[in-house]
Order: sequence, then structure tokens, then C-alpha cells
Amino acid sequence: MINEDKLIKSLQQDNCFIGDDAAVVPFVDNQNYVITKDILVEDIHFRTKYFTPYDLAHKALHVNLSDIAAMGAKPTYILCGISVPQYLHEYATQFLHHLTQICKNLDVILIGGDTTSSQDKLFISITAIGIGQKDQIKYRNSSKNGDIICIIGDIGFAHTGFALLEQNLTSQEKYISSSLRPIAKITEGIWLGSQQYVHSMMDISDGLYIDLNKLCKSSNKGAVIELDMLQQHLDPEISLQTALEGGEDYSLLCTIDKNSFELLSDQFSNNFNYQVKPIGFITDGDSIKFKKNNQIIDLTVNPFTHFGEKL
Amino acid sequence: MINEDKLIKSLQQDNCFIGDDAAVVPFVDNQNYVITKDILVEDIHFRTKYFTPYDLAHKALHVNLSDIAAMGAKPTYILCGISVPQYLHEYATQFLHHLTQICKNLDVILIGGDTTSSQDKLFISITAIGIGQKDQIKYRNSSKNGDIICIIGDIGFAHTGFALLEQNLTSQEKYISSSLRPIAKITEGIWLGSQQYVHSMMDISDGLYIDLNKLCKSSNKGAVIELDMLQQHLDPEISLQTALEGGEDYSLLCTIDKNSFELLSDQFSNNFNYQVKPIGFITDGDSIKFKKNNQIIDLTVNPFTHFGEKL
Repeated sequence: MINEDKLIKSLQQDNCFIGDDAAVVPFVDNQNYVITKDILVEDIHFRTKYFTPYDLAHKALHVNLSDIAAMGAKPTYILCGISVPQYLHEYATQFLHHLTQICKNLDVILIGGDTTSSQDKLFISITAIGIGQKDQIKYRNSSKNGDIICIIGDIGFAHTGFALLEQNLTSQEKYISSSLRPIAKITEGIWLGSQQYVHSMMDISDGLYIDLNKLCKSSNKGAVIELDMLQQHLDPEISLQTALEGGEDYSLLCTIDKNSFELLSDQFSNNFNYQVKPIGFITDGDSIKFKKNNQIIDLTVNPFTHFGEKL
Repeated sequence: MINEDKLIKSLQQDNCFIGDDAAVVPFVDNQNYVITKDILVEDIHFRTKYFTPYDLAHKALHVNLSDIAAMGAKPTYILCGISVPQYLHEYATQFLHHLTQICKNLDVILIGGDTTSSQDKLFISITAIGIGQKDQIKYRNSSKNGDIICIIGDIGFAHTGFALLEQNLTSQEKYISSSLRPIAKITEGIWLGSQQYVHSMMDISDGLYIDLNKLCKSSNKGAVIELDMLQQHLDPEISLQTALEGGEDYSLLCTIDKNSFELLSDQFSNNFNYQVKPIGFITDGDSIKFKKNNQIIDLTVNPFTHFGEKL
């Protein structure tokens, strides 16, 4: 598989604007567009066996809107490309019907796209465009030493749901729905974008460890994950390993100035009726360290480069 | 196969902005962004057997830039999504290298994208973004009765090249290069966009007949194709049927006010050193008619809904 990180690095050397959840291009004076593109490939990212057309429409859209949310911007438009094998004609028609309906409900306008044939697999490529205030768009590269690292949303749910679905188990609906129909943190992203003391932000799509690593690399920083704190936020069914490795939760990962954390965390709870989850802090180092009972410990994390490649 | 026209109609009923070569979204006061997205699927739109990574990078880019040109806008940014089967890892790396180089040469900035695995076929999805003057962006829906229908560029070349490539023939380089490396009419599109008396424009990707049909439907007009005029513009090797049916030339199709045609055609020749090709005129009807020796004649055209589906 192509190593996306290496690729991004080589493209950056070519003076391309790549590396955040979404690209930023100028709009009017005080606003920018943010643009992202995510692909979903049958039997890599989803199976039609357990994804209904509605589930897939929901997921394909929210995976992209999550990137917009992670920049602190408001989703506005999408384009949808779809390549359809003959035998999934009806499935794809249903998919597109649901996609337009879900867009409408979210005030997102479908402005274009492309439909083609495919030999055997369904391929979906969505481009999402959002609008953000220039001074409220958040990047990965601006975390500061001492920042509190926080998760906004669940962690390990989607991977647990995926494992159940692959075993044909349909109990534990909350995990399964996280895998089939993750919900982009749109209003949370916009609110966090408007907070000056949120220094950096991204979404967690590839897994907490691998994504925090990206944020740290982009900021030229290191991090300490406090495993006791992380454990507190986990459902009993979800192991630390799943929390660190499992992808596709589409929760937000942000770093907050340590002096503002308490106030901001309280305001967040008041607004959204759930808690920000602090799990550690940014350091001046260049790697992620794990702490348990106040001691640095070794922990082997095996991040997968893409969720789909485990299928 | 999903019928893209029916789909577009159903999306338009849902108040989505769909139907031109590219979608138009606001930029600053007097400018708009135009945005398009085209997918290329292995063994539907290309074969790695005869497309080098360079060819494919060129084609994937120009197919998208052609949509921007057809709106009278200047290509500015792209995003590239690519799903890669294991055995094409090196091919895809080369593809991305060439894509960034070709973008650089065209002053187009690669701002983002997505790379994923694929089980067995290579999928490429490019989103291209251009900038156009609001009053110079051309649409399909504004052709007027009596307009001269013109082709800018070659016709039937790409289909002829495709047929040669499928038979493992590599003579007649000009046709083969049209199929492998079509060149978007970028400067021509911008120039035509700036001309008030160019009433409507699109690119010819699916074939002259099917694309003119789209333009007429969008404008609520009909057309007459003068077969003697069309024949004059064709290479001896290219039949009328191939000219009408063959897709993927990425020439431009535009309609020009009949009173301004001669002047505009002369100016075009002076600027670009080749001729605009008039082939007929727009009518108040609702269908495309064929004329030969000044008589309306019957002609059966079998447009394919997508080039690729013939593979």
C-alpha cells in the first residue's frame, strides 16, 4: 500500500498545500473555504452485506463532513462521484436518494458529481466544502507545549462495532451504529473553532494513536498519554488497545491551552450536555509516551495504516 | 448502469445545482469558483496495459480541466483521490509524481486528496476547481435560436485512437495520443468565456451527438447538424458516425450568435492559429435533425452512455 504519510511529505516538498483534514482556499475577506475528499471502496471500507444504502449514504457523507468539522468550519456543499457495478444498480440508486435527503436535512447542497460503471466493486468519492471564519479555522500544526489533549466523542466504538458486524453479530447497537453511521461533530467543531484557546484540532479517523502522532508531527511536538485518564473514559467492553488502535470513530481530537482548559471544558458541557475527555498533554519532545500510575511505561501500539486494510 | 441523465433530473427536482460541466459557487464580488469531479476506473476508462503512469496522470487531470475550460474559467486547484490495488503500488506512485509535475507546469495547485487500498482495480477521482469572472462563465442552458453550433478542436480522434489501442496497434500517433493524452482547451475556454456572443458552451466528453443533445435539452432548444459541413472538418479516416458517436475528444462545443459568428471566428483563428468548426445551428425545436444536400435526412446514431462501457 502507498504510505500516505510519505506521500504527503513528498507533496509538501513540491509546495502543495496538503496535510490537514481539509485544504483551505480563499473565499471572501474574513472567510475561507475548506475542502476535503474521502473515498470509500467496497470491501475495503464497507460491505454491502451489512451496510444498507441508507447507512452507506450516511457514512460516506459524515466521514467527509467530519473533516470539515475538524477544521472548525460549517459544511456547505458536496460533490459525489460513484462508480457502480451492474449488480448494484438498485443499491446505488437508493444510496443517491438517501444521500440527497441527508444533505437536505443538514443544509448541505449537492452541487455536482460523476457517475460511471465499475467492473465489480462500488466506489464512492465525496468532495465536501465548508466555510469557516479565517481566524477560527483550526489546524494540526499549532499545538503548544503543555496543551491538554482532549477527545470529543466516543473512542473504540466503531472498531468494536466493526468486529461485531464482521462476525454477523447485531447486538450492542451503540457500537454497530458507530461503525455504520458515525456522526460528524459538526456543531462541536464550529464551537471549538470559535474558541481561541483551542490551539489545534483534527478528527480521529485512523485511530487515536496514529492521529495524535500526525498532530504531534505537524506541530513538531511530542505528547504524553495518561493511560489512567484514558481508561476512565472507556466503556468496560473497550480495551485500552482498541481505544488507541481502532479507527473510524470520527470523534474530534483537540489540544487546549492548559490555563483555559477548565473553563472551556465547563462551557462545552453546558452547551453540548456531554464531557470533553482529557487524556494527556503536549510536550516539547518528538514522540508519544504513555504514563500509568505516574510512571512512563512501554506500550506496543500496532496502528493500522487504514481501517480497510484489515478487512 | 445508472442513467446519469435521469439521475441529474431527479437531483434537480431536489433543488440541487447539477447539470453543467462544473458547479458554480461564490468567490469574491465579481468572480465565482467552478468545481467539477470526474472519476476514472481501471478497465472502464483506461487500461494500465497501454496507459503509462504519465499518460494516466495527464488524462485524469485534463479530463477534469476540460470541464473547467468548458465553463470559461481558469483551473486553479485540484484534489486527487486514488484507490490502489497492491500490485499497482509502483504504478500509482509514478502516477502521483507525474500528476504533481503536470499540475506545476499548468499553475494548478494540488491541495489535497485521499489514498486508500483497493482490492483489484485502480480508481482515480479528481476534483478540479477553477476561477471565472461571474459575467464570463458559460452555461449549457443559454443557447439561442439561430446560434451557430461550433466545435473547437478535433472530433473522432480519441475514439479512433482507442480502437487502435484495443487492437494493439500503435501507428497513427495523432489518434492514439488523443485517446491517451487529450489536451483540455484551457486558453480557448477562457477566451470564449470572455466573448459575449458565445451564448453557451460545454466540452465533448461523451460524443458530439449525445453532448449536443444535452446542451439542447438544457436550453430547451433543438438543433440541425449540417452533415456536409461536419464532413468537411473530418480527417478522411474518420467516418461521420465516429464523429457523431465517439467520445473523449475533450474538444469544446459552443453556440455563437449568428450575426457575430464571422468576426468571432476570425478573431479565434488569429489568436489560436486554427479554425472554429461550424457544424449547424440551434433551432426552436426539441430534437436534433440532420441535413444533407439541404434536405433533412434520417440518421441512426447509437451514442454510448459512457465510453468505458464499450470496453
